[in-house]
Amino acid sequence: MLLVRLASEVVTRSRRCYCQKEKSLRKLRICEALCGHDLGEKVKIQGWVRSVRSQKKALFLDVNDGSSLRSLQVVADPGLAHRRLTFGSAVEISGSLEKSLHEKQNVELQATEVLVVGECDPLNFPFKVKERHGLEYIRQFPHLRCKTNTFSSLLRVRSAATSAIHSFFKENGFVHIHTPIITSNDCEGAGEIFHVEGRGNKGDQDEPYFFSVPAFLTVSGQLHLEVMAGAFPCVYTFGPTFRAENSQSRRHLAEFYMVEAEISFIRSLEDLMVVMENLFKATTERILAECPHDIELYHKHVAPGHRVRTINILTHSSQSFAFKVEWGNDLQTEHENYLVKHCGNVPVFVINYPYELKPFYARDNSDQPEHTVAAVDLLVPGIGELFGGSLREEQQEMLRARLARAGMEDAYQWYLELRQFGSVPHGGFGMGFERYLQCVLGVHNIKDVIPFPRFSHSCLL
Amino acid sequence: MLLVRLASEVVTRSRRCYCQKEKSLRKLRICEALCGHDLGEKVKIQGWVRSVRSQKKALFLDVNDGSSLRSLQVVADPGLAHRRLTFGSAVEISGSLEKSLHEKQNVELQATEVLVVGECDPLNFPFKVKERHGLEYIRQFPHLRCKTNTFSSLLRVRSAATSAIHSFFKENGFVHIHTPIITSNDCEGAGEIFHVEGRGNKGDQDEPYFFSVPAFLTVSGQLHLEVMAGAFPCVYTFGPTFRAENSQSRRHLAEFYMVEAEISFIRSLEDLMVVMENLFKATTERILAECPHDIELYHKHVAPGHRVRTINILTHSSQSFAFKVEWGNDLQTEHENYLVKHCGNVPVFVINYPYELKPFYARDNSDQPEHTVAAVDLLVPGIGELFGGSLREEQQEMLRARLARAGMEDAYQWYLELRQFGSVPHGGFGMGFERYLQCVLGVHNIKDVIPFPRFSHSCLL
Repeated sequence: MLLVRLASEVVTRSRRCYCQKEKSLRKLRICEALCGHDLGEKVKIQGWVRSVRSQKKALFLDVNDGSSLRSLQVVADPGLAHRRLTFGSAVEISGSLEKSLHEKQNVELQATEVLVVGECDPLNFPFKVKERHGLEYIRQFPHLRCKTNTFSSLLRVRSAATSAIHSFFKENGFVHIHTPIITSNDCEGAGEIFHVEGRGNKGDQDEPYFFSVPAFLTVSGQLHLEVMAGAFPCVYTFGPTFRAENSQSRRHLAEFYMVEAEISFIRSLEDLMVVMENLFKATTERILAECPHDIELYHKHVAPGHRVRTINILTHSSQSFAFKVEWGNDLQTEHENYLVKHCGNVPVFVINYPYELKPFYARDNSDQPEHTVAAVDLLVPGIGELFGGSLREEQQEMLRARLARAGMEDAYQWYLELRQFGSVPHGGFGMGFERYLQCVLGVHNIKDVIPFPRFSHSCLL
Repeated sequence: MLLVRLASEVVTRSRRCYCQKEKSLRKLRICEALCGHDLGEKVKIQGWVRSVRSQKKALFLDVNDGSSLRSLQVVADPGLAHRRLTFGSAVEISGSLEKSLHEKQNVELQATEVLVVGECDPLNFPFKVKERHGLEYIRQFPHLRCKTNTFSSLLRVRSAATSAIHSFFKENGFVHIHTPIITSNDCEGAGEIFHVEGRGNKGDQDEPYFFSVPAFLTVSGQLHLEVMAGAFPCVYTFGPTFRAENSQSRRHLAEFYMVEAEISFIRSLEDLMVVMENLFKATTERILAECPHDIELYHKHVAPGHRVRTINILTHSSQSFAFKVEWGNDLQTEHENYLVKHCGNVPVFVINYPYELKPFYARDNSDQPEHTVAAVDLLVPGIGELFGGSLREEQQEMLRARLARAGMEDAYQWYLELRQFGSVPHGGFGMGFERYLQCVLGVHNIKDVIPFPRFSHSCLL
């Protein structure tokens, strides 16, 4: 017998042999219960208590399970009241769904059984019933803030936006690529890059590195997407990127998400701009359709007045416009904001940047004496740069010359080789996902749109 | 004027002002061209040459653009032949789609113009025309291997599986959570964990760490998902995880992807097993439907004979079965394989592991004297463990006692607090995404199912 000292049971099973417990009582999510399709039916709901009102004739509870912003009103016999039934406690409630006479909801649950499965210590719970806590306050409790309406709405919108982005690319024939997180490329990031090392490795002389070379956390998946642009019509990635910037400002995170795409066989920035614009619009239309209540909450309580702006962004049929300006250094946030304002507070594209301002891979427009590269940024109100993109230098000799001037020819031998074997004109862009969420929800601080923010001096949980 | 020294143009635009170039000639992806809907139409296709046959009366090309495994046959006047038109070169070809007389395809492109946009140096190109290169050989060229049929098929299947997984969870009401990559938790991973540090930080005495605390690359998103299980009915994440294991075996990567889910208000392993099984089946059904040719290629050329097995996995209506075994240490790969074989080469669940074998968060079954925890693994043929999951200890005092015994009470204060404020019975699982792909495609080495493998002593590109 081989199988000595093992786990206690081995089970093979198919769907048929699954014996569902509690067959008689259907579990319903609260978003389903609120639909009003199941009136009269006996069901069980599970969630967290958002309010308790104990009256003479009845006990009223609001119960939320995170499936939507809205809570379900539960009506019970006052005898079911219990000291453990407090704000924040976890409950399982059986009863029947009935039409509600209350104007705020169609449906209520008339409870026959109320079970507290998890108490909530009211003294130490940082959130108080019926109180609207500010984003700065709730940010102090990364392990509990998902229990607030504001942050639970954010997470639903973030999830819907994630899904909308994947759908957009899938529907447009893009192949999804997991570009690597750990990389030996040391590009772009200058000094602001994280180093990765196996914890055991203390820098022995024989083997100073786990990977035999210094390794870093990626600052962008672009170069790896360009590998794939040599075999696919269009590819994208949607993953974490990193900057070791020593900043605690409202605009910076050490770990944040980027949506990056690369398209083969394109020769003009217009072709890129169309995809950028369509991605923005399709994603925003979808989250508006899927999470209207959650977005409403932000526009009502977090960024009043922002709603008009967001709708503007979507519907404004902008004029064609070219703004000839003076020459030299890069755009600063204040310039970006000015530009956006100047254009009527709608998103604007800025194209054709000075050659010296952009990285080695941006395609030379060969437009002496101005000398620009085919790069494009999309600036949006309140945020500044939301997308950045460019055509890539696909001509081997141009690229080699530029890398050689920068002393980077050896390190990017593989990147040069991409231009040696069936090189194609191509371009791509990246969109900061947190900035996108800030833009559509009107959230001032980037730390409030990511589940677990990491920044200089802070890595909680 | 504020806007001194800037980019050269600012553009606001709406869909209407987009002037499409080449309006007259529709660009078609090759998967679209092969559908046979556009016979007679003048189109342009773009891709890479897979073969060139120059005959007296005609020039034949096979062109592939990565949109499908299949290539489009192009027929051209022999005068269009050119020395730059070689295997691997990138081309743009205009012509009209016509019915093909060749039995292998419905459609061919009768070309009027053939443009080589990128040459492919045949001497140095590591792949040769019509040759089937082994996986080990092509693995040496991470920047070029997507140009082979085998790896381009893998990437399409991987992309389809990624999308299928997101769809499965979305359709079942799961909220997607980006759990953090950088974490201050040092759990589970024992010594085999990567350390992250800002490159500038040389371990000054004043500020030895970028985050003020030691920071690591995540080994699992589970604990962070459990935070969310306190506010949502079900959540999932699908992202990179890391192990600094000093191994170059076919089974190990330093960076790999995990699908992890957490479900609130469940009390039995059955409830978990149903979701694990449905996820596996739904994903596999979808990729079989979406990528039949790509999967066929693997079953024909990479893992002959494996196809029967895969179909078995899907269709085998397994018997109910309980295997009582002896007691103590953990399962080894050889045991797992034996178990799977013993059960008729179908996936098997192993449940209820010895208490001492599993981490602190696994729920105590309180079944003295055996003393097990409610943990479950799903073992699959050829791979071993594909899923691992458990109910989580939601009882504060049980968890506190276990953490205290391990001396971990202080570090996991936040995790204990989750049990203080509306704790619910819950459980979850993780699936190794690369192992899943190995399982359905029959790929022996895990390095062949990820775009850019990272492992001990290797971090290419």
